[in-house]
Amino acid sequence: MTIAPFPVSAPLPVVRLMPKANARAIRHGAPWVYANELVTDRRTKGLIPGAMAVLEDSLRQPLGVVTVNTNSKIIARMMDADPEASIDQAWMEKHLRRALGLRERMYDAPFYRLVHAEADGLPGVIIDRFGDTCVIQPNAAWSDALIGPLTAALIAVTGVSNVLKNASGRTRSLEGLDDVSGVLAGSAPDAAVPVQMNGATYMADLTGGQKTGIFYDQRPNHAFAASLARGARVLDVFSHVGGFGLAAVVAGAKSALCIDGSGPALELTAQGAAAMGVSDHVSIRQGDAFDVLTALRAEGAEFDLIICDPPAFAPAKPALEAGLRAYERIARLAAPLVSEGGVLGLCSCSHAADLAAFRTASVRGIGRAGRRPALIHTGFAGADHPQLPQLAETGYLKALFFHL
Amino acid sequence: MTIAPFPVSAPLPVVRLMPKANARAIRHGAPWVYANELVTDRRTKGLIPGAMAVLEDSLRQPLGVVTVNTNSKIIARMMDADPEASIDQAWMEKHLRRALGLRERMYDAPFYRLVHAEADGLPGVIIDRFGDTCVIQPNAAWSDALIGPLTAALIAVTGVSNVLKNASGRTRSLEGLDDVSGVLAGSAPDAAVPVQMNGATYMADLTGGQKTGIFYDQRPNHAFAASLARGARVLDVFSHVGGFGLAAVVAGAKSALCIDGSGPALELTAQGAAAMGVSDHVSIRQGDAFDVLTALRAEGAEFDLIICDPPAFAPAKPALEAGLRAYERIARLAAPLVSEGGVLGLCSCSHAADLAAFRTASVRGIGRAGRRPALIHTGFAGADHPQLPQLAETGYLKALFFHL
Repeated sequence: MTIAPFPVSAPLPVVRLMPKANARAIRHGAPWVYANELVTDRRTKGLIPGAMAVLEDSLRQPLGVVTVNTNSKIIARMMDADPEASIDQAWMEKHLRRALGLRERMYDAPFYRLVHAEADGLPGVIIDRFGDTCVIQPNAAWSDALIGPLTAALIAVTGVSNVLKNASGRTRSLEGLDDVSGVLAGSAPDAAVPVQMNGATYMADLTGGQKTGIFYDQRPNHAFAASLARGARVLDVFSHVGGFGLAAVVAGAKSALCIDGSGPALELTAQGAAAMGVSDHVSIRQGDAFDVLTALRAEGAEFDLIICDPPAFAPAKPALEAGLRAYERIARLAAPLVSEGGVLGLCSCSHAADLAAFRTASVRGIGRAGRRPALIHTGFAGADHPQLPQLAETGYLKALFFHL
Repeated sequence: MTIAPFPVSAPLPVVRLMPKANARAIRHGAPWVYANELVTDRRTKGLIPGAMAVLEDSLRQPLGVVTVNTNSKIIARMMDADPEASIDQAWMEKHLRRALGLRERMYDAPFYRLVHAEADGLPGVIIDRFGDTCVIQPNAAWSDALIGPLTAALIAVTGVSNVLKNASGRTRSLEGLDDVSGVLAGSAPDAAVPVQMNGATYMADLTGGQKTGIFYDQRPNHAFAASLARGARVLDVFSHVGGFGLAAVVAGAKSALCIDGSGPALELTAQGAAAMGVSDHVSIRQGDAFDVLTALRAEGAEFDLIICDPPAFAPAKPALEAGLRAYERIARLAAPLVSEGGVLGLCSCSHAADLAAFRTASVRGIGRAGRRPALIHTGFAGADHPQLPQLAETGYLKALFFHL
């Protein structure tokens, strides 16, 4: 049974586009209506955040069902192009089944991003699956309000036992939502969970938040790095729980040194290595990446494969210039540590730094270190992170691999 | 012994940049000098095409050794930043060893592009390896003139028995070179050669030219498609020797229908399927892709995975608009044949159509077919096709996969 704080099926209230809004774009799949594009009369303003409504163009032609949140700059998100659609548990199950179908075609084991928001038909909703446990990030108001039926739909479609809510995402505050995480069904795991990816085992602390969870988006880039790892001395900078380093060791790397600022993340790296029985090949070192890279240079260290996967140095436009300088600096500090004929992989998860800007900064840093790079691979987030063509922003992750 | 029609070691003639030329860019790795950037006095004009020279900036500071070809718009290509370098067999072996090292790290079997021109340190030279046979495309004058030492270096480094010369590339005419192919060492295979890629066997006719040879550049995109293929009905449009179709069947596809205009290419596809013992799962259909897609629609055909890998519709700027319309049309004709929840892969090998333009054309075509795409993967040429950051043009191959 759907228990919702607002109607989710006809008759729904009506909201209307301003004449200047691009109704044609919405008919062609644009997923969002901005606050300055919607007529916000008293009735619209009175809608509960997340409430469903029928969106009409300025000529009163219906465009579909939207969810409305007057607290957000994204005042309406398209839910269904059918204005008669009921946004109930059955509707959610339909989208979840479709998302699950794609993942089950691609992955042998149930470890993946199951729902990547708009592109999977569930606006603002992120769901990561870790075997028998799912973690929902309900980052749009509708999904917070309908978390009951969403959880029920998720259990019905996937059969998982445990469903957790992660409310720590930065985007929730933009929607006026709280940051209270919790258990929606079953129970929270009382220890780190083993996650299988690219043949490696990673230990993920699902309740410890982003710092010690796991990111599925780098999966294909881990795999590419691993394809270069046989016999190599590998350095994984900003290693988190050992994403690149452990994948490289499983693929035959001679050694992997993982560097991170977080002790708990490095502890999980060591646990992952132990779980795979490759502890002899993995070492960890805690510290600031810039400092450690400088120290390694002084020690005369050399690696055949180095990957740097820093946090977003340029998360938004105002930080772009400083962020690009930081990416350049990372490249400049890492390049001298790469052996002749070795490979340097550089990653950016900055929305504001596009591929060309990030590539330019990386090449400049490598050049300043006196090395001549050839670009051998450009990678993005994995296929369990689909994006709507209309939302270019969602293509945030870039990975560049250079032969030096 | 190097037998060269011009000196390849000091003292070399000197050529000089005009003051307006960007000497700084060359110092930082820019590989080419255009005709309007070089002082072309009588002595420079008298150089044999491909001749080595020391390049100086307008202040007579040496920048390195270049190869000069006054017949080409690219009048000089940087060979070595060391002005004392000898461009002899040993120099070629050094670059070949480095290129081989990268490929041997990545691939288990000796089937790959061994040299991808500038980015592998051998300007204008393409070398593909098919086991015991290499095919050289000497597309810059120096490599045509020094084909003897280049062949000797190749045999010394790789140990291959057979070296063929393929002179059919379009770029050779831009360098003023002939189109006479031949055997440089050993012998030409008298039948199609089995090539291993992504677990599939492809039959390649190495002497029949581009139409029935094999392209290594699509390897990672074949692999991505194969990752979606389990149990799927697959349609491979512009299939050539069966690149996507055979990889999909090996990965567990229920069936693959390969469509191409070339009878010999389809015959090789059938041979490849037979060699793998999967003939029951592979069917071929000769015809114009646009016509066959239209016919399949009329037949009510449906596929879970469709890949369209057409020839370059927009090889150069003047053809861009018509080319983008052709890409849109392919997308519009293919999308209706994709099952609900299926995937459509669209490829472009057009230099003139950049990623954004190709994506826009693809999304428009899919939209015109009434389908809503989510982009799940963007792929490029494989890592055995490195590119210099300064030569963005060489990033010609794009592959987009959409969940429909």
